[in-house]
Amino acid sequence: MIKAGIIGATGYAGSELVRLLLGHKETEIVWYGSRSYVDKRYADIYQNFFKLVDAKCMDDNMEALADEADVIFTATPQGLCASLINEGILSRAKVIDLSADFRIKDVKKYEAWYGIPHKAPQYIEEAVYGLCEINREEIKKARLVANPGCYPTCSTLSIYPLLKEDMIDSSTIIIDAKSGTSGAGRGAKVDNLFCEVNENIKAYGVASHRHTPEIEDQLGYVCGQEVLINFTPHLVPMNRGILVTAYASLKKEVSYEEVKAAYDKYYEKETFVRVLDRDVCPQTKWVEGSNYVDVNFKIDPRTKRIIMMGAMDNLVKGAAGQAVQNMNLLFGLKETEGLLQIPMVP
Amino acid sequence: MIKAGIIGATGYAGSELVRLLLGHKETEIVWYGSRSYVDKRYADIYQNFFKLVDAKCMDDNMEALADEADVIFTATPQGLCASLINEGILSRAKVIDLSADFRIKDVKKYEAWYGIPHKAPQYIEEAVYGLCEINREEIKKARLVANPGCYPTCSTLSIYPLLKEDMIDSSTIIIDAKSGTSGAGRGAKVDNLFCEVNENIKAYGVASHRHTPEIEDQLGYVCGQEVLINFTPHLVPMNRGILVTAYASLKKEVSYEEVKAAYDKYYEKETFVRVLDRDVCPQTKWVEGSNYVDVNFKIDPRTKRIIMMGAMDNLVKGAAGQAVQNMNLLFGLKETEGLLQIPMVP
Amino acid sequence: MIKAGIIGATGYAGSELVRLLLGHKETEIVWYGSRSYVDKRYADIYQNFFKLVDAKCMDDNMEALADEADVIFTATPQGLCASLINEGILSRAKVIDLSADFRIKDVKKYEAWYGIPHKAPQYIEEAVYGLCEINREEIKKARLVANPGCYPTCSTLSIYPLLKEDMIDSSTIIIDAKSGTSGAGRGAKVDNLFCEVNENIKAYGVASHRHTPEIEDQLGYVCGQEVLINFTPHLVPMNRGILVTAYASLKKEVSYEEVKAAYDKYYEKETFVRVLDRDVCPQTKWVEGSNYVDVNFKIDPRTKRIIMMGAMDNLVKGAAGQAVQNMNLLFGLKETEGLLQIPMVP
Amino acid sequence: MIKAGIIGATGYAGSELVRLLLGHKETEIVWYGSRSYVDKRYADIYQNFFKLVDAKCMDDNMEALADEADVIFTATPQGLCASLINEGILSRAKVIDLSADFRIKDVKKYEAWYGIPHKAPQYIEEAVYGLCEINREEIKKARLVANPGCYPTCSTLSIYPLLKEDMIDSSTIIIDAKSGTSGAGRGAKVDNLFCEVNENIKAYGVASHRHTPEIEDQLGYVCGQEVLINFTPHLVPMNRGILVTAYASLKKEVSYEEVKAAYDKYYEKETFVRVLDRDVCPQTKWVEGSNYVDVNFKIDPRTKRIIMMGAMDNLVKGAAGQAVQNMNLLFGLKETEGLLQIPMVP
Repeated sequence: MIKAGIIGATGYAGSELVRLLLGHKETEIVWYGSRSYVDKRYADIYQNFFKLVDAKCMDDNMEALADEADVIFTATPQGLCASLINEGILSRAKVIDLSADFRIKDVKKYEAWYGIPHKAPQYIEEAVYGLCEINREEIKKARLVANPGCYPTCSTLSIYPLLKEDMIDSSTIIIDAKSGTSGAGRGAKVDNLFCEVNENIKAYGVASHRHTPEIEDQLGYVCGQEVLINFTPHLVPMNRGILVTAYASLKKEVSYEEVKAAYDKYYEKETFVRVLDRDVCPQTKWVEGSNYVDVNFKIDPRTKRIIMMGAMDNLVKGAAGQAVQNMNLLFGLKETEGLLQIPMVP
Repeated sequence: MIKAGIIGATGYAGSELVRLLLGHKETEIVWYGSRSYVDKRYADIYQNFFKLVDAKCMDDNMEALADEADVIFTATPQGLCASLINEGILSRAKVIDLSADFRIKDVKKYEAWYGIPHKAPQYIEEAVYGLCEINREEIKKARLVANPGCYPTCSTLSIYPLLKEDMIDSSTIIIDAKSGTSGAGRGAKVDNLFCEVNENIKAYGVASHRHTPEIEDQLGYVCGQEVLINFTPHLVPMNRGILVTAYASLKKEVSYEEVKAAYDKYYEKETFVRVLDRDVCPQTKWVEGSNYVDVNFKIDPRTKRIIMMGAMDNLVKGAAGQAVQNMNLLFGLKETEGLLQIPMVP
Repeated sequence: MIKAGIIGATGYAGSELVRLLLGHKETEIVWYGSRSYVDKRYADIYQNFFKLVDAKCMDDNMEALADEADVIFTATPQGLCASLINEGILSRAKVIDLSADFRIKDVKKYEAWYGIPHKAPQYIEEAVYGLCEINREEIKKARLVANPGCYPTCSTLSIYPLLKEDMIDSSTIIIDAKSGTSGAGRGAKVDNLFCEVNENIKAYGVASHRHTPEIEDQLGYVCGQEVLINFTPHLVPMNRGILVTAYASLKKEVSYEEVKAAYDKYYEKETFVRVLDRDVCPQTKWVEGSNYVDVNFKIDPRTKRIIMMGAMDNLVKGAAGQAVQNMNLLFGLKETEGLLQIPMVP
Repeated sequence: MIKAGIIGATGYAGSELVRLLLGHKETEIVWYGSRSYVDKRYADIYQNFFKLVDAKCMDDNMEALADEADVIFTATPQGLCASLINEGILSRAKVIDLSADFRIKDVKKYEAWYGIPHKAPQYIEEAVYGLCEINREEIKKARLVANPGCYPTCSTLSIYPLLKEDMIDSSTIIIDAKSGTSGAGRGAKVDNLFCEVNENIKAYGVASHRHTPEIEDQLGYVCGQEVLINFTPHLVPMNRGILVTAYASLKKEVSYEEVKAAYDKYYEKETFVRVLDRDVCPQTKWVEGSNYVDVNFKIDPRTKRIIMMGAMDNLVKGAAGQAVQNMNLLFGLKETEGLLQIPMVP
C-alpha cells in the first residue's frame, strides 16, 4: 500500500483527493493536513466522509509527513510548497504539487505573474509538468510533479494536436473558458457567496489571469516557438466543470476528416480523452465527477477558423484526478487505477 | 456474471442503473430497453457513457429479455410492469420493479391512488417490498421485488425506529419532504423546464401524492395498526437529493440518549444508514451520488414533539442504488457490491 | 419629499431598500450607512446602481442622521438599533427597525432567544409590530416600528385568518419553512458559499430558530392565548423567496368554501395578499421581486388537518418592501406607493 | 392611451412584454394572443399576473387585432409575422416584430440561414432595424420595426463604437456569448429541462447560429464593408442574462483613455448603455430585470488585441424592453417611459 499524505486536505481539491484515494486500491491516506482545522475530525468538516474517515486534521509539517508517507500531495495556495520543500523531503517521498509553484520553468515569469518570490527555484528544472497525456514517460521518473492548472489542462488538451500537426496559426489562438465555482476555492469571500454567483455570469482576470503563461508555455513546447494567447476565464453558476472554447485561424484548408484524424492520432489510445462524434459539443455535465476530458471541434469555412472545445471536471482531471493519475505513473501502477468513475448525470 | 436487462433505460433512474451496474463487478448489462429510442445508440442519449457503452436501445419486450437476462429491472411508469409480467418471465428471471405496481398490497388502494386498473394482481402478494434494511431476509428469497419509492424510502428509514420503539404517536406524523427535480423524470414538460424550476420552490400533490399510502403501509406494518399521515412533497431547484423533515408527538418524555439508542439499535450494523452526530442536520449534498441515507433527530421539549430528518440521493438509494442492493440480496452477493461510491462534494 | 436614511445599506435588505426607495416618488435617500464601507461609493459595492446612485457610504451615526432624515431604516444585526436609539432621535425622526430588537414584547424572552441583553427596553412597549395587514391603524401613529421578520411575516399571514376564525387547534401548528439564501445575509461565511448551498438543501435552527417566539407571539395575540409551535426553516439553493407550509388540526369539519371565505374576509381588500384559486399552490417565483404574498390551503379530510401555504419574496414583503409599506403608513402616503412592482418571471 | 396587442403573449418574451406594459403609463394591453392557450385566463398561465390581469388568451388573428390596437407586438417564431402582415394591417397599426423576419435585408441570406421561404419580402426594405441607440431617428418614422435579436443587441452595442472609430480590424472579430436559458423559450424540450441545464454549460450552434448574419450585417453597416465573424453562443444555468465577450485585433496602439473616449462618444447621452469604470467587468446580475446594457473593455498589449464585454438581460433589452423602447419612439413618447426598472440584486 502506498502511504499518501495531503497538505491542504480541507480545500475542495484536497477533499476531492480524499474521495478519490479512498476508492483507490493501492493507497492509504496517512495524513489529512489542514492548518485551519488542526485536531478537528476531518469528517466534521466534510460530512460526506462521516463513518468513512476517522482521522483528525494535522498541521502542514512536511518534514514529519515525509517520514510517514510515500507520496505527498500539496493542495495549497501558491508559494507554500516551494517554501517547504527540500532535498530531505524529496529523498524520502514523491511530491505532487497541485499549486503553480513548479509549473513554469522561467522563474522570472512565475514571479511576475504570481507576484511572489520563488522560494525553491533550484527544483524548478527538475520538476516535471504532470500533464500525463503529454509527459507520461518523464513523469514516471520524477521526484517532483507539477500538477497542471485546471484551465491549462483543458486548454492544452483541446488545442495541442492541431498545433502539433501544424494546422493552426499559433499567433491567433484565443481561449474563452468557463468554470464552475469550486475552482475559486473554499475561502469565505463575498464574491463567492451563493447570492453573488447564482443567476450571474462574469469574466474575470481578463488579459491578466495567472494560467495564461502556463498555457502559453505548454503550447510553446508543442510548436517549438513562443506563443502568446488571449485567455479569458468566466465564472459560471455551477459547482463543477470547465468548458474551453478556443479559436484559431487554420493554416490551410482542412476537411473534417483530416482534423478528426489529427485528434485521433494523439488520443485514440488515451483512456481519459474522448474525441466526440461529429457535431457533438462537449458539455461539462457529461464528465462530471470523472477524469474524462471530452474534446471536439468545428471548422468554420467562412472565416477559415476552427473552434476547438473541451469539457472536464475541474476538480478531477483539473486537479485531484490528474494528481492521482500522476501518482499512478510515479509508482508504476495502472494509470487508470482509482480513476474510472463514470460521469454522473444528471 | 449476472446478466441484467433494463426496461426504461433512458429515464433518469434507468441511466443511473446503467452507471451503477457498469461499476458492479458481478454484472453485465445485456439489454438497454427504451421504447422511445429503439435502435439509437444508448451513448448518444446519455453522452456520459460515450466510449463506455456501445449498445443500442432495444424495445421493452420482456419475454425476449427474460431469455437473455438473469434479472430484469423495470424503470418505467406505473402499470407497465404489471401489464407485461407473467409466470413464464418470473420462472426465468428475477424482476426488480422500480415502479409502484407491486408496492401496495391492497389492490383497491393501488387503483384508487393511481387511477389505473392493476393488470397482475395475482403477483401482489408474492412481491416483496424491497426496503433492504427492513425486509432483507424476505428479499433474498423473492422472485419479484417491489423497489420502494424515493419518498417512502427516506421517510420510512427516518421514522420507523421510533415507531417501532413506541416512542412516537403514530396518529401525529407529518412528513414535509423536499426533492430535487430528477424525481420528476425526463419527460418534456413545461413545468420541469429550467426556467420554471430554477429560483423557485413549490409544494405539489398536497394531501394527494401517491407515495402517501405507500408510506402509510410501511409505517403501519411497523406499529401494527393503520397509520394516516400528512405527506407534502416540494420541488427544489437542484438535480438530486431528497430531504425529509418529519414531525411527531412523543409518547413520553425521552432523552437524547434514549432516542439515539433507538436509532442505533436498528442502524448500527447498517452500512447505508448513517445516524449523524448530535445536532448535525442531514444535508442532501453529503450523500449525493451515493447509496447512503443520513438520518438524525431533534427533540423539542417545548412542544413535546420530535423532528426526524433524513437525506438521501433520490436516484441512488431512492431508486437505482436500492435496486442494485436488492439485486445483490437476490443473488447472494455482498450487499454493498457496486454501491460504495463516496458522496461527491461539492 | 421624505428624506430617508438607511443604516446597514450594504446588506441585502439594505440594498433592496435602496432599490425600492429610488423608485418611490415621495422619497429621497440622504444617507447610505455602512460601517464596513465608509467613504466608498455605494455603487461600487452594488454595481446595479451604477450611474443611478452617486453617494458614498456613511458610518452609522444615528444622531447625525436624525438631523438629516425624516425616517431612519435600520437594516442591521440584532442589538444595534437598541443600542443607538434614544428620545432625541425618536423626537426628530421616525425609526423603522428591520432587526428583531423591538419585535418581542417580553424582554426576557428576547434576551433568552437572542442571547444578548436588550439595551433599550424602555421603547419595547411603544414600538409597533409592523405587520401592516394586521396592525395598520397603530402603525400610522407610531414613532418606532418593529419591521417583522421574514419567516414571521409569511407564517402569520398564511395562518392567522383560520386561527382568528377558530377553525384550527392552536396547539397543533407546525410550520415547515423554506428560504432562499439572501436571508442568510451578505457576510462572508463558508456555509453560504455557492458550492455549499448549490445542489443542496438542509434544515437549520431546528427547534431553536429565533423567529419561533416572534411567530408564537403574533399567533398568540390572534387567538388570545399562548401558542407553542414547531418551526423548522430550511435553506434552499435560490436567491430569493420564502415558502411556508404549515399544518394544523381542524377544530371541526369545514368545507373548501368556508375556509376560502375565512381567508377572503381578511384579505379581500388587501392589495398585497393574494388568496390563490382552488388547488393552486403558491410558488416563490410568482412573487419574486414584488411585495405580494400568495397564500392558499388544502383540506385533508383523511387526517382532519389543513395545510396552509404562503409564498413571498423574503427581501421585499419579508424585509425592505414591508419597511416601505410601513413608511407609507407612517407618513400618510398611499400604502402601495413604490410597491407595485410586478413579480418577475422567469 | 396606446392600445397594444401581443401575439405570442405566453412565451417568455411575450410575458415580459406584459410585465413591462402593465407598468407603462401610456399603454393598455387589449389583446393577449396565444394560439396554444386560446380562451384560457392569461393569469392561469403566468400566475405572477394573478389579480393583475383578468383577460383571456386570444388567437393570433392579426387582422382583427389591427382594428383594436395601435401597436402590435409579434413575439412569435420566425415566419409567423411575415406570413400575416399586409398593407391593411400596416395602415392601421404599427408593428414591432420580435422575430427575425425583418432583420436581415438580403432575403436570400435570411432564407439560407433560417431555412424557410420569406412570405413578405416586399416589406423588408421598409422595415427599420430597431436598435434604438443606432437607428433612433429612422425608428421614429417607421411603420414596421424589426426588433433586434438578443445576441445581436448585446454584441453590436459592445463592439460598434470601436469599429466606427476604426480602432479594430473588422476581419478579426470573435464573439463568445453566454446566455441564460429563457432565451431558449418556453417550449417543452428535453434539452431545456432543469436537470439537463443545471450544473452544465455547453456551446451550441457553433459556426452556424442564426444570429451570426444579423450581427455581421449590423457591424458591416458601421464600418461600410462586409464583415465575417465567429459567433459562439453558450447555454448557462441561469434564467436571464446575456454576456458577450468579444475579441478583436487593434489597428494601432491605443491607450485606455482613447478607447474609453470612443465608447463615451457614443454612449454618454444614452440612458440604457452604461460604460463601466476601468477594470470593472460587466456581470449579468447587475442588469437583471432592467433595460440597461453594461459594457466595458480591456486592452491586452501583449497580443495587441482588445477584449470587449457587454452584459444585459436577454428578455428586457434583448427582447421586450427594447420593443417597448421602440414603441416609445414610434409614438413620440419619452424613450425611457416604462423602462426605468432598477436591476434586481441579488
